[in-house]
Order: sequence, then structure tokens, then C-alpha cells
Amino acid sequence: MFLHDKHLQFEAKPVNPDPLMAKKVQELIGGQYGEMTVAMQYLFQGWGVRAGNEKYKDLLLDIGTEELGHIEMLATMVARLLEGTSLDHQEEAMKDPATAAVLGGMNPQHAIVSGLNARPADSIGNPWQGNYIISSGNLLADFRSNLSAESQGRVQAVRLYEMTNDPGLRDMLAVLIARDSYHQNLWMQAIKELEEKEGSKIVPTTFDRAQQREDIAFSLYNHSQSEESKEGSWAEGETPAGDGHFSYVEKPPFEGEIPSIPPSPKSVHNTLPEDKL
Amino acid sequence: MFLHDKHLQFEAKPVNPDPLMAKKVQELIGGQYGEMTVAMQYLFQGWGVRAGNEKYKDLLLDIGTEELGHIEMLATMVARLLEGTSLDHQEEAMKDPATAAVLGGMNPQHAIVSGLNARPADSIGNPWQGNYIISSGNLLADFRSNLSAESQGRVQAVRLYEMTNDPGLRDMLAVLIARDSYHQNLWMQAIKELEEKEGSKIVPTTFDRAQQREDIAFSLYNHSQSEESKEGSWAEGETPAGDGHFSYVEKPPFEGEIPSIPPSPKSVHNTLPEDKL
Amino acid sequence: MFLHDKHLQFEAKPVNPDPLMAKKVQELIGGQYGEMTVAMQYLFQGWGVRAGNEKYKDLLLDIGTEELGHIEMLATMVARLLEGTSLDHQEEAMKDPATAAVLGGMNPQHAIVSGLNARPADSIGNPWQGNYIISSGNLLADFRSNLSAESQGRVQAVRLYEMTNDPGLRDMLAVLIARDSYHQNLWMQAIKELEEKEGSKIVPTTFDRAQQREDIAFSLYNHSQSEESKEGSWAEGETPAGDGHFSYVEKPPFEGEIPSIPPSPKSVHNTLPEDKL
Amino acid sequence: MFLHDKHLQFEAKPVNPDPLMAKKVQELIGGQYGEMTVAMQYLFQGWGVRAGNEKYKDLLLDIGTEELGHIEMLATMVARLLEGTSLDHQEEAMKDPATAAVLGGMNPQHAIVSGLNARPADSIGNPWQGNYIISSGNLLADFRSNLSAESQGRVQAVRLYEMTNDPGLRDMLAVLIARDSYHQNLWMQAIKELEEKEGSKIVPTTFDRAQQREDIAFSLYNHSQSEESKEGSWAEGETPAGDGHFSYVEKPPFEGEIPSIPPSPKSVHNTLPEDKL
Amino acid sequence: MFLHDKHLQFEAKPVNPDPLMAKKVQELIGGQYGEMTVAMQYLFQGWGVRAGNEKYKDLLLDIGTEELGHIEMLATMVARLLEGTSLDHQEEAMKDPATAAVLGGMNPQHAIVSGLNARPADSIGNPWQGNYIISSGNLLADFRSNLSAESQGRVQAVRLYEMTNDPGLRDMLAVLIARDSYHQNLWMQAIKELEEKEGSKIVPTTFDRAQQREDIAFSLYNHSQSEESKEGSWAEGETPAGDGHFSYVEKPPFEGEIPSIPPSPKSVHNTLPEDKL
Amino acid sequence: MFLHDKHLQFEAKPVNPDPLMAKKVQELIGGQYGEMTVAMQYLFQGWGVRAGNEKYKDLLLDIGTEELGHIEMLATMVARLLEGTSLDHQEEAMKDPATAAVLGGMNPQHAIVSGLNARPADSIGNPWQGNYIISSGNLLADFRSNLSAESQGRVQAVRLYEMTNDPGLRDMLAVLIARDSYHQNLWMQAIKELEEKEGSKIVPTTFDRAQQREDIAFSLYNHSQSEESKEGSWAEGETPAGDGHFSYVEKPPFEGEIPSIPPSPKSVHNTLPEDKL
Repeated sequence: MFLHDKHLQFEAKPVNPDPLMAKKVQELIGGQYGEMTVAMQYLFQGWGVRAGNEKYKDLLLDIGTEELGHIEMLATMVARLLEGTSLDHQEEAMKDPATAAVLGGMNPQHAIVSGLNARPADSIGNPWQGNYIISSGNLLADFRSNLSAESQGRVQAVRLYEMTNDPGLRDMLAVLIARDSYHQNLWMQAIKELEEKEGSKIVPTTFDRAQQREDIAFSLYNHSQSEESKEGSWAEGETPAGDGHFSYVEKPPFEGEIPSIPPSPKSVHNTLPEDKL
Repeated sequence: MFLHDKHLQFEAKPVNPDPLMAKKVQELIGGQYGEMTVAMQYLFQGWGVRAGNEKYKDLLLDIGTEELGHIEMLATMVARLLEGTSLDHQEEAMKDPATAAVLGGMNPQHAIVSGLNARPADSIGNPWQGNYIISSGNLLADFRSNLSAESQGRVQAVRLYEMTNDPGLRDMLAVLIARDSYHQNLWMQAIKELEEKEGSKIVPTTFDRAQQREDIAFSLYNHSQSEESKEGSWAEGETPAGDGHFSYVEKPPFEGEIPSIPPSPKSVHNTLPEDKL
Repeated sequence: MFLHDKHLQFEAKPVNPDPLMAKKVQELIGGQYGEMTVAMQYLFQGWGVRAGNEKYKDLLLDIGTEELGHIEMLATMVARLLEGTSLDHQEEAMKDPATAAVLGGMNPQHAIVSGLNARPADSIGNPWQGNYIISSGNLLADFRSNLSAESQGRVQAVRLYEMTNDPGLRDMLAVLIARDSYHQNLWMQAIKELEEKEGSKIVPTTFDRAQQREDIAFSLYNHSQSEESKEGSWAEGETPAGDGHFSYVEKPPFEGEIPSIPPSPKSVHNTLPEDKL
Repeated sequence: MFLHDKHLQFEAKPVNPDPLMAKKVQELIGGQYGEMTVAMQYLFQGWGVRAGNEKYKDLLLDIGTEELGHIEMLATMVARLLEGTSLDHQEEAMKDPATAAVLGGMNPQHAIVSGLNARPADSIGNPWQGNYIISSGNLLADFRSNLSAESQGRVQAVRLYEMTNDPGLRDMLAVLIARDSYHQNLWMQAIKELEEKEGSKIVPTTFDRAQQREDIAFSLYNHSQSEESKEGSWAEGETPAGDGHFSYVEKPPFEGEIPSIPPSPKSVHNTLPEDKL
Repeated sequence: MFLHDKHLQFEAKPVNPDPLMAKKVQELIGGQYGEMTVAMQYLFQGWGVRAGNEKYKDLLLDIGTEELGHIEMLATMVARLLEGTSLDHQEEAMKDPATAAVLGGMNPQHAIVSGLNARPADSIGNPWQGNYIISSGNLLADFRSNLSAESQGRVQAVRLYEMTNDPGLRDMLAVLIARDSYHQNLWMQAIKELEEKEGSKIVPTTFDRAQQREDIAFSLYNHSQSEESKEGSWAEGETPAGDGHFSYVEKPPFEGEIPSIPPSPKSVHNTLPEDKL
Repeated sequence: MFLHDKHLQFEAKPVNPDPLMAKKVQELIGGQYGEMTVAMQYLFQGWGVRAGNEKYKDLLLDIGTEELGHIEMLATMVARLLEGTSLDHQEEAMKDPATAAVLGGMNPQHAIVSGLNARPADSIGNPWQGNYIISSGNLLADFRSNLSAESQGRVQAVRLYEMTNDPGLRDMLAVLIARDSYHQNLWMQAIKELEEKEGSKIVPTTFDRAQQREDIAFSLYNHSQSEESKEGSWAEGETPAGDGHFSYVEKPPFEGEIPSIPPSPKSVHNTLPEDKL
């Protein structure tokens, strides 16, 4: 059950409107790694945590709830960046080149569809979608996905920070960038904790290693004529999981045959074999 | 530039056809964390690597090229699991309950659209899409996304392994599970290497920390009445990045005001303020 | 800013697991008119309400926050309906026809992807998407969309109620159906209030009627040889908006010409006119 | 069975080409509430009407058929707005700032993909999709969705009207705005008719009210610390459906427990409980 | 401008309801090559035909209008295949294995969302989308796409014909299959006509051949160690377009360098070169 | 199994960066008819070819593998067109109108998401998706789809060629245009070969013609009051398939009744018939 406090957790006030920046900031709302993604990802993961792992459940629901408030801050920011945009006679306005660049570049749905408000979409206008998130029930796998999301998210927020001089927008981004910083530390720590408890770093840790092809579980296959990849620490030495030693295979062998699948039944109306055509 | 060898890298031969398993195996081809995702993700990342990082470029292109061959193995497996399925008078066949369950449960597009072949789609039939992948130009962020993908991918392959008794299908899954195992080690190692070189674990490492809100960069905000999350190692002690100490905030304060945005211009035809209606 | 209470607002406990019903219940989570839709729709509308309409802003955020808790109840319900589902050797299990029907019919991603938890998707598995929602900044238009959503949502919840005998599932659905009942009343009332204040029922009420083609604003055009549609109260008499009288036009006239568009520039490489080919 | 008359029902001739306006007008073709949506929505609803409701069937098919002609008018308008656009050496042309704004802002697929013709997409370029429409078989629910669509649609057409000075484009929009005006009246009237006949305003009217949680069917739950929402006519007094009296609940109680779901079977490879890790 | 005749152009009456077949028949409505695709593809192509090509415009609009009637026939067929399906207590009904297979296999949205009517979606439930169609303004390119669509469409209709014994369903499919047969002939003929008029078979025929790399315009590049592809008539002899002679290149040479792209500006926060990390 | 050669097959070096052209070139990477489409389409078709048709299998895999290299060339081109784009203070930079047009018009995800690299998306930013491709198992149908794809693809590449003066970009486009030229010849030839072998041009050739409605398989139905379409060679004379003679039907008759479907069961809660309301 959720409750709402009308205050923004942090301020979201640009000094000046800027419809083009409004379009770009949408990436942090409804992009692949925007706040809708992390909010929904943490909440769905949290709702799926089973008895005996209440600590992780509470953590996920706390952070997911925090992220809902980030969507709110960003939606407020977008509305303010669009403040005062008038629709009057835009084709007239286009005669001024500077205005033209703004009117030509802004997200037309901010004017036509949402009435100068945020959209549940990214900086291009692609709608957010459920398949951006993952919740697998395996927390070690999921925490790695969370670390990935916070890393990509912070890269994007930092790029937006570089793009703007507006002190108000920068203030808000400085908050989001700091929280992404904490969340990276958080998931790194939670991953470390789980890896130690589960006694392995290879997810899922509960699968019997004897059932996988252990003989091919440590080799870098070189699929090219180039050998730069051999120079990395992933091509020799002990693995970070401590389960073996890396090796390098210059010419990956093949075990499989050239595949041949019998013709399908006539009722399927696929192309018959050459000799029956 | 790519070349193709007609041999499968590893064998892909089920002992028996099984149209329902064909539907499920599709998850590993065109799902969010299927082989189309990792192949395209590594290739796009590789194509984007800039001068001075040839080692990472070669690595990404080697592994991306390997994954193309995994799609091929899985596509062959799906075609063979569908071998011999006849379309004749299926409503007649439905009178046998066991057959009915198979015909009712199989992916209808395997029969109607692809002629008993694999589809570029997941186990439900959702088409694969470009937004499943990420390539940000920031390799540390991207390698974390790669570790996430290999972790989720191995979880899914392991679940399919549990679902089947077919020795041929299990043999192929044992290969994929082992390669996912190597790839997890690989990306963990590459992450470690980059974190050491870049001297930080907080992505992007190149952003000036003084510009983020450092005062809120270490706190777990408790957004609920529950305090289980306080028990984790992410609520006190040094951070894994070594950049500070975790803290726990029972009642997250707010800094923002209750947001108030002025009415929009008349030309937008939004609802006017209550006193002007 | 949001807060979370660990309690479910209402109970979500089925008496028996049922993986097929788990698939169907997903429609209420991630379908076009599921709880993700109404939660996000009300929140985005609320975040966009401008100064002077605080009453509507508070209302939208209250109800949007309530709906977040409904996603939570439904996600819990789905996890419990999936409780105990084992992946072991499903192809063996398929030999029993009753089991086969369940295994053939259940959502395969519930097993392979989400680890027996809810997905942000509908009863087919289509991911939820941002384009399911609308927030236009015009509250009268939006409240009508909200009434539409609650009407479609209650129809779907009622159909699920009919499909099941499980007392626990029915208890939860009885809650959702009652809340949809309140929400229909709520939006009807808010619509009435706004229509009265704005002095018109034709949205947007602020557009100067003299600018529209008033001469064609009251006619039912008969686009067929059938005339049953003439029998409705929409073909004669005063309009519900009280702005004129309905009429019926048996053969809709045309004003436009047969359109003819000049050939495009050569650089476009469209097909040339017949006489230049 | 459909027939086509080559004449446009209304004229669709802009005075001047304008590639940027062409991009924006696309919202009315392939947007969430564009003409493809209402055409397909009314046709699918009409095809689903059952025996005994011929009047509604004829109505839906008449209006759906009218809307097909609106797509045609808009597609013609877009082609004419794009008239004369040359692809020659656009990077040269970009040196003139005014031209640059147009070339930078126009929809690139209008040039590259459709050869200066309309696309089945919105003003951003998102393709139209079947999930924009609803046809539930429950006409009262569906007519409310139709009223919602015509309300959102007219808001968007009005905004486009404000954006342009072109008399030809305004003439066509004045037609669409007038028809949206009629269609709002039409669906309001049809809703009234059905509500009266069915004897209830709560959709579906055929569900036995005793089966829903009637005790919670009239309350506004306040999910925040703010109480502005209490001021609305939806918080006290008789409901518009006349089925009870509204009430206001300051602190919504919870009935549910803190949910706890047993660990899943080992074969799923979810994270084990803390004490078994 | 469109008109509607209430009669179905051809009958659409199955002898028996069959909810599973209803799901499968959806492929012909809203699939990639279903009737929504061809209807919208021909109409958008027709609306885009320019002055001087009226014959093609009329043709496209005639056939597009015919296809609208095919959607209608199929939607009627689906509703009748779903006739009489009751939602009552489906979990009870699941105890009978034959019923279970049907209830487990049918499209749940046919029950929950559309009230036993057709959906604008394919046999899996993926919504139809605008990006299934193409209208390029180049009629020769588009007629080839039309021939492709009618070929794929007829393959799918034939497969459905094989799946059923129902005489009523077969009668309707026999109509669609025959019309697909005519439409294949039609587009082949129109392609031939245009190729002759335009004096070339290589689309677009208006591009100056001197501007393409004519030296590599006739070679089959062998990208594998296998040489079966050399056996085709596409590897030697005159081309069907009569513009040259095919050749076979066993080892495709490369002209390009190993690509090297300079590091991006610091503000982008991509990974720095190895020697600057 | 695939191998990679680090060299680009052909050079991909623009003379000057151009972020707007980078956006447009994306159409050839991830558009409906871009290189991702043809690569995946040929590979999936190739993987599905059955025993006895090795020649076609090898051909499809050779060409599919070639197309993978085209994605690589285009991705390299896009990165170079974006070379040197700085994110610094873009709102400052917007004060120069020429710069503003570029910054307003470029794809914001090229800056924010991909770090100045290519995206798996089209010129608008719509992500590539699996449903762009077709692989039906019927090679004659599929080769026609391939010819369609190469025709649309070449039209698009030619339009891009016209848009640019950059000699480096033109050199690469001249390569792609030439290869599309070969591929059109290739698929035309393969189609001719298969049509001859299968003894028919109507796909699928294996369906018994006696089962289709042969009486309606040769008629152009005129669905309008216009008769221009009668002038085409598709309205009389022998069909290109040689299976009959075309005819023209001025007023298409109807065979079907006005459809009437009985009311659905009460449990569905659809609208009842008029006389039961």
C-alpha cells in the first residue's frame, strides 16, 4: 500500500524554460534506463521476494518507492521547461531562425498530446514499456541488473548535466547523479553479500556444475583473425569466481555437423526438396 | 566483415520432437536476454569502441560473433523440435486430450507463419526488438550490462534444462550454460580491470564528484514503516567503492516545495484555473 | 514523494494455486486497462495539473497512489497462484492430460523469466506500454478517459470473477470491482462538475465555436444502405450538450474534389507520370 | 463490404507546403487518438454487435466508415504539405538557417521511406498499433471509450488549428473539429440511452452488486497528507449513479497482512531463504 | 470517401464453434501479412499516387477497399467460432482434459477483453502495427511488396485450410485463397507493365547507374567455405534484368581498413583510450 | 558458426561529420528495410531450409552473412558522422541558428544513450524489431519478400545519396546501391528458377487449385464509381501465371448475408439485446 506526500523530495525548478531540453530530459523519465524502469523493476522484484528474505524485500520496496518520487520530480521539471510555450501561429514564428530551431526540434507531442506536460516516453518519444525491466526471482541476477541500470542511468544523467548551464536543472541532476552513485554502491554491496552467502559468483549458484560442459567453461574463443583480445586478463590466469583458469583458443573447433533437417509434411506447403520439385 | 562456416559450433539435436518445448526454447533466441540480444549488444558495443581500446573492441567482436552461432544452434534446435508436426485436420486431432494439450499449447505462428521453423521472438511470441540492447560508449557501464545479461541468460537456460529430460536438448543447454558461465567470469574480470585502471567503481568515473550532491550520496532512505532493510551491509560501514560510509535515514526529509506550475497559455486549451472557469 | 506501507491494503490470497488463472489475472496488472495503466495515467495527469486546480491535482494523486497498491495486490496474487509450480521434467508431466493442459496453457515466461512471479504484461504476455495512458492537460477530456478506463477495467474484472470459484481470488476481485464502481461514480461526478463550471459539454470548451464548421456539427451521416442507425436518439431532437438539434443525412454529400497531387521532384525517385515513363 | 468514392468528403488543400506541419498533422492520422484509431475502433465494435442490437451495429459501422474517409483527407493533406520538397543536397541547404530548421525538424521518414506521403504513424513517427483501440462487446463501456476518444481527438485538432495560419489547413481542421463535436454529442446521447435502458450507470450493469464489496464502493481514500481532494463533490452527497452516498476516508485502513510467499521449488533456481543460503 | 454495405461480400459461417481455431484465424486479421496489412498498405499507397498515374491510384483504392471487407468477413468468422463460449467457473471446467486443452489454449483476451469478438491482433495476440505496411511512392517497389504480401498471405491461408475440417470455415478460406491467387496475378502483371514502361527491372529505375559501383553489381560473394550457392543460375549467365552477367567470387576481397574512430570529447564520458585511463 | 574479419568489406569514411545525416543514415541500419532486416531475414530463412535444398541454404547464409558486414559499415559511418560532437552547454550553442538547427534536429539518443555511436533503430529512433522479417519455409514466397526488401532498400539508399554531397558517404552508398542491384537480380533469378521447377507462379504452388474458388480467381472487383483501374493489363487478357484470363467486374456482387450473431452467454456481460435491456 502506498502513500503520497505532496512535497517533492528535492526541488525541480529550472531557471528558464527550454522546450528542447524538455525533450531531452524525457530520457530520464521513460527511457530504457529512466526512472520508470528502475521504479517498476525494484517494485516487481520486491513483490516477488519470498519468505526468509524480508531484508531484501524491504530494501527493494524502499528504493522502488524512492524512484517513484524521482519520476515526479522529472515530470515537474519537464512541465516547467515547457512553461509558457504558446501554440499560436507556429508557422509564423518559424520565420525567426532561432525560434524555428526550437519549434522544429521540440517534441511535437509535448504540444499536441500532453498539453505541455511530461510523457511516459523517452527523449525520442518511444513509449516506456514493460520489457525494459527484469525481475527473475533470482536476486543475485537481479541485483546485477540493478547495478547495470544505475550505471547506465548515471551515464545518461551526467551527459544531460554537461548539456545544460541552467543552475536549476543542474541542481536537480546533481541530486539524481548522487543517488545513482549511492545506488551503485548499494547494489555492489548487496551483490557481494549474496555472492559470499551463496558461495559462488556464477549465477545461478544453485545449479550443479557437473551438469554443464565444464571443459568449455573457461575458454575465450577467438572468432577472428585478430588477437588483441588475447591481451586481456580474461584470457589467462585464475577466474574472478575462483572456479578455474582462463584459457585462449585461437581457432575455435566445431563439434557440430552441418545441420540437415528432413523436409516437413506436405500439409505445411514448404518448398519441397530439389529432386521432388 | 563476417564469414560463415556451415558447421554448427556445437550439436543441436533433440532425441524427440516436442512442439511445446520448441515454444519455450524461443526464449533463448528472441527473449529480452536471448542470444539475439547478446549478439547484437556485443557487436554494437564493439563497433563503437574508439581508437586506443582495440583490446576491448576485439573482445566484443569475438564474443558477439560467437553468439551469432548460438542463435544458429537454437534455430536448428527449434526446427528439429517441430519436426514432423502435421497441420492436417487439427480440430480432429484435438479429440485426443494429450494431443489437444500440445496443439492448444504450441506457438500457432510456428505452424502458420514460419513453416515449422524458429521465429525471431521469445517464448510468448513477442518479437525481438532493438531496445533490448544497450551500447553506451562507456565500457564499464556496458560490461556491467553484459554481466547482467549473462546472469539472467544463464538463469533462464538452467530453468529450461530442469524442464526437459531430452538428452539431446540437455547436451546443447549444457554447452550454453557453460559458455554463460565463462562469459560471467569474463565480464567480471573485464569490469575489475577497468575499475582498477579508471581508479573508481562509480560509473562514469570521469564525472567530477564535486558536482554531485555528495551529502546525499551515501544514505539509504527508508521509504516505509519497515526497517528490515537497515540490517543489510548497505546501511552502514564503508562502501565497496571505498568512497565513503553508508548511513541509514529512517525518515527521508524533503527539500522540495509542493510544486505549483502556472497555467499554460490559452492556445493550449488546457483546463483553466478554478477561479477562471 | 511516495511512502510505502508493507501491508496490503486488501488481502490477496487464493485458496489454491492455479497457473492458468495466474496468466489470466495478468490482464488486470499490465493490460490496456489494467492497474499499471490507471496508476500511471492518474499520476501523470496529477503531476501536470496547474496552479489554481489543486483540488483536482490532489484527487488524481490520491487515486493514482491507491492504484499503485492494486498492482501490488495483484502481483502478490499472481505469485501465490503460481506457488509450488515445479519445473522438473515437464515433458514427463505432459503425459497426464490434465497436467498437460495446464503446462501447455500457462504463460511460459512465468516459469522461465520471472521465477513464478508477476510480469509487467497482460494476459497474453504483451508488455505494458506508456502509450496505454493519456494525460492531455485538459481535465474534462482526461476525466472522460478515466471514466472509460474504469468502465473497461470493471468489465474485465467481472469477467475474471465469473471464470473462477476460488473464494480467495473472488474476495480480492470483489474489492477491485467495488473500487472500480466508486471510481466510475467519482469520474462521472467530476465530469459533471467541470461541465457545469466550464459551461459546455463539448471538449475543449474553450474553443471558439464560430471557428468550426457549425453547419455540419449536428448531422449523422449515413454511410451505408442501411437505416437502422436513424432510429437512435442521436438522429433527431436536442443534443445532450444543448447546443443544437440532431439531424440525419441519408446520402452524405461530398464537398471535396477527386484529389490530384503533382508529381514529386525527380530526386525522390517516385514513379513518374504515365506519360513520362 | 465496402465501397469507395474517389471524391474527398471535404477538401484537403493547404495554401502552402510546410513539411514541419506535415509532421505534426500525422498525430491526427496515426496517433493514439487519431483517425486510424476511431475508424478501427468503431468498425471492430460494429462487427462485434450481436443480434437484437442492429441499431447500434449500423451506427458504429456508419461512423467507422466515415472515419476511414477522414484518414484519406488527412493523408492527402500531408502529401500536399510535403509537395515540392526536394532531397537534393540537403547538407548544402542546411547552410541557410531557416531551411535548416525545417530540414532538421521534419520527419526524415517522409523523405526516405514514404516518398513525401503520409505514414501510418503519429507526429513523432511511432507506428499506429492495434492496442490503441478497444472493443469489449459491452456497448456502454465502449461508448464511454468512444466519447473519450472524440474528446481527446478534438483537443488535439484544436491545438493544431491554433498552430497554423494556413487557411486551407484551417478549413479542413474546422471540418474535423465540427465532426468531433457531433461525435461527442452522439456518444453522450447513446450513453444516456443505454444507461436508461439498462437501469444503471455502473458498467457492467449486469453484475450482481451483492457480489462486490459494497461497503467500500463509495469512499474516497485519501492517500496523502493533503486534503484538497475532500473539497470535490465526489467526497460527499449522492452519487451520480444514484446508488449511494459518497464518503471521505482520511486515513485509509488496511485489511491485508504483510504478504509472505513460501520459497519456490528448487528447480526454479530462485534465491533461497536467508537461513538456507 | 467510403461507403458500407451491410452484406458480407462472401459468407463467413463455421459449422461449429471452435475457440482454438478462433485464435489461429486471427493471423489473417492482424498478422504481419493479414488483411489489416494489405488493406492499409493498398490504401496508403493509393492515397500517395500522384497526378498522371490515375490508373494505379484507382487500382490500389479498389483493392484496398476490397480488403476492408475481408477484415469484416474474418471478424465475423472469429465471433462465430467463439459463439457460446461461457466464462462460468472455468477452473471447474478444466477438470475435463479435453475442455482443459481448449480453455488452456484459447486466446484469453477473446474472453476477458473483447467479449468473444475478434481482436486487431495476430494468432499470438501481438497487436497489428503500422510498421507492417510499406508505401514508398515508388510503385514498382511497392507492387513487389504487394506481391510478397499476397504470396505470404496465401501460404498462411492455405495452412489454416489444412488445419480444419469445418466446411463453413473452409468455404470462406477457399474464397480468400482464390482472391490471393488473383492478387498475385494482378501484381505480377502490374510489375511487368511498369518494368516495360520504365525500361529496367532494377528499382528505382530512375537512378543513374554510373553513380553506383557497377564493378561489384553482378557478383555473388561466397561468405563461407561452402560452394553450393555457386550451383544456382544467379552465379553465372545473363541477369534477368539484362543489365550484365553474373559472376561468382569465392573469396570476397575487402577494400576497407580496420576501422579506427578517434576518442569522443570528454563531455560524452565514454571510456578513455587505454593510455589515458 | 560465424567468423569475423576486422576489416570493413568496403570503406565507410565521410569527409565531414554531420550529426543530422547520422540520424538519417540510421534508416539503413534499423529501419523496416534496413540491413538488420535483410541480415536477419536471410539467416532465419537459411537456418530453416530443409534437406534437399542445400543450394538455397548456402545462398541465403552467404548473403545474410554479407549483410551483417553492411550493418558494420553503416555503424562505423554513423560513429564518424557523429565524431567530435560535444555535449558542452548545448543551450548556449543554440544561440547560433545554424548550430541550433543541427542540435535541434539530431537524434538526442545519439548523445544521451549511445555515446555518439549507432543505434539499432531507424531514422526516427523506432527500435528494430523481429516482426520486420519473414521466414515462412516456402522459398518462393520468401524470395519474393527478399526481392521486395532489396527494392525498397535500394529506393531508400538512393534517396540518401541524393541528400548528400559528402564524397565519402556517397562512396559507401554507391557500394550499397550496387549490392542492392545485384541482390535484386539475384532474387529475380532465384524466383524464376523456382517458378519453373514448381511449374506454377501462384504461391504456394502445392495447393490443389480445385479447393479454391476458381470462379472468382481472375476478376478485378471495381469497388468504386471510378473505372480507371479497368485500363490496366490486369483487367483482361491472359494472366502472367498462364492459369486463366483476367476479367473486370464493374459492380462486385455479394454472396454473404447481413451477418447476425446470437447474443453471448450472460457470464460475458456483453450488452443484452434491445428487447432484454
